[in-house]
Amino acid sequence: MTICGTDLHILKGDVPEVTDGRVLGHEAVGTVEEVGAGVKNVKVGDRVLVSCITSCGSCRFCREGHYGLCVGGGGWILGHLIDGTQAEYVRVPFADTSTYPVPVGVSDEETLMVADILPTGYEVGVLNGRVTPGDVVAVVGAGPIGLSAITGARLYSPSHIVAIDLAASRLEAAKQFGADVIVNPANEKPLEVVQSLTGGLGADVAIEAVGTPAAFELTVSLARPGGHIANIGVHGEPATLHLEELWIKDVTITTGLVDTSSTPTFLKLLAGHQLDAGRFVTHRFPLDDFEQAYDVFARAGETSALKVVLQRA
Amino acid sequence: MTICGTDLHILKGDVPEVTDGRVLGHEAVGTVEEVGAGVKNVKVGDRVLVSCITSCGSCRFCREGHYGLCVGGGGWILGHLIDGTQAEYVRVPFADTSTYPVPVGVSDEETLMVADILPTGYEVGVLNGRVTPGDVVAVVGAGPIGLSAITGARLYSPSHIVAIDLAASRLEAAKQFGADVIVNPANEKPLEVVQSLTGGLGADVAIEAVGTPAAFELTVSLARPGGHIANIGVHGEPATLHLEELWIKDVTITTGLVDTSSTPTFLKLLAGHQLDAGRFVTHRFPLDDFEQAYDVFARAGETSALKVVLQRA
Amino acid sequence: MTICGTDLHILKGDVPEVTDGRVLGHEAVGTVEEVGAGVKNVKVGDRVLVSCITSCGSCRFCREGHYGLCVGGGGWILGHLIDGTQAEYVRVPFADTSTYPVPVGVSDEETLMVADILPTGYEVGVLNGRVTPGDVVAVVGAGPIGLSAITGARLYSPSHIVAIDLAASRLEAAKQFGADVIVNPANEKPLEVVQSLTGGLGADVAIEAVGTPAAFELTVSLARPGGHIANIGVHGEPATLHLEELWIKDVTITTGLVDTSSTPTFLKLLAGHQLDAGRFVTHRFPLDDFEQAYDVFARAGETSALKVVLQRA
Amino acid sequence: MTICGTDLHILKGDVPEVTDGRVLGHEAVGTVEEVGAGVKNVKVGDRVLVSCITSCGSCRFCREGHYGLCVGGGGWILGHLIDGTQAEYVRVPFADTSTYPVPVGVSDEETLMVADILPTGYEVGVLNGRVTPGDVVAVVGAGPIGLSAITGARLYSPSHIVAIDLAASRLEAAKQFGADVIVNPANEKPLEVVQSLTGGLGADVAIEAVGTPAAFELTVSLARPGGHIANIGVHGEPATLHLEELWIKDVTITTGLVDTSSTPTFLKLLAGHQLDAGRFVTHRFPLDDFEQAYDVFARAGETSALKVVLQRA
Repeated sequence: MTICGTDLHILKGDVPEVTDGRVLGHEAVGTVEEVGAGVKNVKVGDRVLVSCITSCGSCRFCREGHYGLCVGGGGWILGHLIDGTQAEYVRVPFADTSTYPVPVGVSDEETLMVADILPTGYEVGVLNGRVTPGDVVAVVGAGPIGLSAITGARLYSPSHIVAIDLAASRLEAAKQFGADVIVNPANEKPLEVVQSLTGGLGADVAIEAVGTPAAFELTVSLARPGGHIANIGVHGEPATLHLEELWIKDVTITTGLVDTSSTPTFLKLLAGHQLDAGRFVTHRFPLDDFEQAYDVFARAGETSALKVVLQRA
Repeated sequence: MTICGTDLHILKGDVPEVTDGRVLGHEAVGTVEEVGAGVKNVKVGDRVLVSCITSCGSCRFCREGHYGLCVGGGGWILGHLIDGTQAEYVRVPFADTSTYPVPVGVSDEETLMVADILPTGYEVGVLNGRVTPGDVVAVVGAGPIGLSAITGARLYSPSHIVAIDLAASRLEAAKQFGADVIVNPANEKPLEVVQSLTGGLGADVAIEAVGTPAAFELTVSLARPGGHIANIGVHGEPATLHLEELWIKDVTITTGLVDTSSTPTFLKLLAGHQLDAGRFVTHRFPLDDFEQAYDVFARAGETSALKVVLQRA
Repeated sequence: MTICGTDLHILKGDVPEVTDGRVLGHEAVGTVEEVGAGVKNVKVGDRVLVSCITSCGSCRFCREGHYGLCVGGGGWILGHLIDGTQAEYVRVPFADTSTYPVPVGVSDEETLMVADILPTGYEVGVLNGRVTPGDVVAVVGAGPIGLSAITGARLYSPSHIVAIDLAASRLEAAKQFGADVIVNPANEKPLEVVQSLTGGLGADVAIEAVGTPAAFELTVSLARPGGHIANIGVHGEPATLHLEELWIKDVTITTGLVDTSSTPTFLKLLAGHQLDAGRFVTHRFPLDDFEQAYDVFARAGETSALKVVLQRA
Repeated sequence: MTICGTDLHILKGDVPEVTDGRVLGHEAVGTVEEVGAGVKNVKVGDRVLVSCITSCGSCRFCREGHYGLCVGGGGWILGHLIDGTQAEYVRVPFADTSTYPVPVGVSDEETLMVADILPTGYEVGVLNGRVTPGDVVAVVGAGPIGLSAITGARLYSPSHIVAIDLAASRLEAAKQFGADVIVNPANEKPLEVVQSLTGGLGADVAIEAVGTPAAFELTVSLARPGGHIANIGVHGEPATLHLEELWIKDVTITTGLVDTSSTPTFLKLLAGHQLDAGRFVTHRFPLDDFEQAYDVFARAGETSALKVVLQRA
């Protein structure tokens, strides 16, 4: 299993619906020990991915593939409304539609990256932003989610991916994950860089992967007329939307929680060896050392941690 | 030819790039008196619709059907950057790609409604909002543009169109144009009405046809999780975007100027007698009385004017 | 419940996987008498629509909305691989994802038309054919499925629907269901009629609702360059595809069994009183008279039967 | 400039509308020597790509991006209805919408591959076939067009591309261009290979790049239920369409001539160094030796020629 930036938000108290004593964690790969009476396809002994999103499979949103909006008892519930995956055992409701077999020939660690981070960058950033071949894509924020968006954008062969971040180490990671151009706003104006690549027009797709009003407003400013702005960041306060400029500019702004509807896509890409998901994992700890794991992950600026994996003995 | 709400904005000084002495007007039907050397398909004597958007036909945006974003000398230029249609004669640049033959069996007045108003409601409201059969569609503002959005939404067979306006006369017009439910926010809460029709979820598509921060924020609040918010209104100031609620709600917000790429669609619908465009026309004046025409149009609240047609003698 | 043309095919022996003694029928509205242990959302006493397609809800096709392709034990099984609905009681597997509540204020008979016929014409004809506003749509065959395709096409506001059939009574029905033009190939050439409406180009969308090579080849010939050809008919033999003409013509040909993924759309349209589904029902019999009912339905040419409803006492 | 397989068909007499004495060739990169009065954007001295498709820019098809269907005097006319590019000078009608500037930093040879071959494989094979990440894509025929389809499919990150051809040298080329699996039907059954990769279902997308009934029928048989079949091959005779199997299988079959609407996409990818187009060029000759060039190209089986470039002195 692994730790998500959201877990840190919970510990700070930003997610008040999480009650005291709740077991956190919404990403795991494990072995099925027991199944409930209504489960048809998952069997004891199966090696499965536990997705961050639980899907009831029968509500209108689940039937449309919008599992993140599930109104039948699913959605993001693990490590949030019910006990999560940072434990020896976890109960996963609606197992038939909320777990996936680990593909033959794919490691647990690679599969684990499909529990949340890869689908989030891809669905909420790349698919919502409708990246197409030849596009110039700007990604604001190069933490794990921004790097997932870069990874996902690569699948659609843009002409240039521009990564923007204030931390040199994150920009370096962005390069390794496939960014063609990196920009530190402390040194260069992101808009000027993007304009220089696009004949002055702006990015075809601009992706927000930070979660602050300033980052959102920067992202909006980078999109060209007719462009797409995809918000992935988790926001705690409103932003200003400059409609006096945007009304005539034909932009599309999207928001969203991941649905994990792209899970089968990623499992097929991993099984076909078309994607290197393992490079997200920078640190590994036994489950018993999870306080240390949280500490390393919380100090990502110093430790350069991307994903920290906790392994059961 | 006819008068647009935008012309009133220009007279108030809201569109500073319009210089003194400029002939206004960007909607007309007329007869071709002369053609330039580069014109291939339009001939002297043709009866044509002059679209509010001029298209160069060869820039990247025109080739993608985004004529409103034309960077080759077109876009919205008539009655804005060059002299417009409220005159006896008007020069229309790029005539091959900026005028359309009046269909056989269709009146000039009906065709005139395709110059701006019908494509605007349809493209910027209905197509951007992706209305599909069975949807609940909320339209905020029931002036000419809101009524065009209602007319356009009807083409996709929603289950309910909810029109929201403060003026009783506009709500009455909305009913006649096809709204199933009308709401005056002075008497009822729009969100409650929309929720009562949607099992508490909100509108599938919410369309802004006013152009104020308050109307935009109301429109955003009406959309369901996974819903679409389409802004048509012309805005002069920023709005607040409640990202702290929206980030998890999977909404899509669009803005845009009309492209008039749907002009052929409307001309086919009119030729097939599938649409009653004539009902937009509430007043008619000879061209010589155009001061009176502007006065009636400017006092739409009292005169119930929707579109005011100016006719050459 | 009702009888489908497919039931007649079964009786003739055209569907060999149906074994002797099988109860036929795959369309019904009824009251839930008992539910299995795994059922979560359907309760005893609920009034529900039983869809012709059973969906397991968890296989890859069901999760993509392609219930007709279900590989988890569903698909078209009722009255085919297991006992069907032409009985006092029927067991419906996967009830949570294969039945739908009858909407408040909608009659059983109207709802019954959503079990098969309306979604089939709409999904396999109209959505696969991508009908859009202003299109000219040709429908070859004006039996119940052709009329469903006409009904579905109307939801997207084409400029003209052209219905083609050899039976005058069916053409008359087509007019009442919304065809703008009717053509009897015994008297007129369908291609010439379609060309006269389209400046010589051909139909934007051509829909096959018969199920013979001749009808398919006629349908293909009616589509314009860039047009869509949607096959709904059940075919028993191959057709000739004139690739020597089609390779350069940019056509799209689709086939398919219904998924009934549009069931919620139709239930919303019926609840909003936007659709008259009742007019499909031409005859009603008590369940005890079902031999007579089959006889009337089988002799549709004489009896003008569209849908024949069987009612439990 | 270069030679296309179509030129060989013309020489054999397969394209009867080409009259005696016609200069062949529909692919070129060159310098503008003179421009007509109606040309606005192309200037003497510009280095431009001459596309195989000429676009009038104002007919309905050109305005929809379907330049290949142009009814305003364009379409495929160069080296077909008017003199073509295998000459020292060529007149290109509608230059503003039929030529493209060679991007800075991109070689003439790479740009030349965008005149026909790359857009053809991409638009008619990959976009029509709607390849998406994770797909299994089968390509029947590994000549220059099949290799273009493989190149284009790579842009959408399939999990596996399966190339099928009878010539070992072409299968070897397919590997180098990005096929993951190669199949020679003389040794293995293509359907079995495809099924082994897809849990028995078949390919998500099957692309025909040969132009014979047998190849088309093989391609159709490889697609899974719900899959897409994209025909690129030029056909001279009809094929058999097994509707008795396909009617229930939810397949989509597309045909088409290239539009070259993807030309800007390819020029952006080349400018961003995201694509190696140069590897298509296997032979180069001075223009004076063009008989020898034709000979090498016509004997591609022996010479392993893919694209043969003719250079002006």
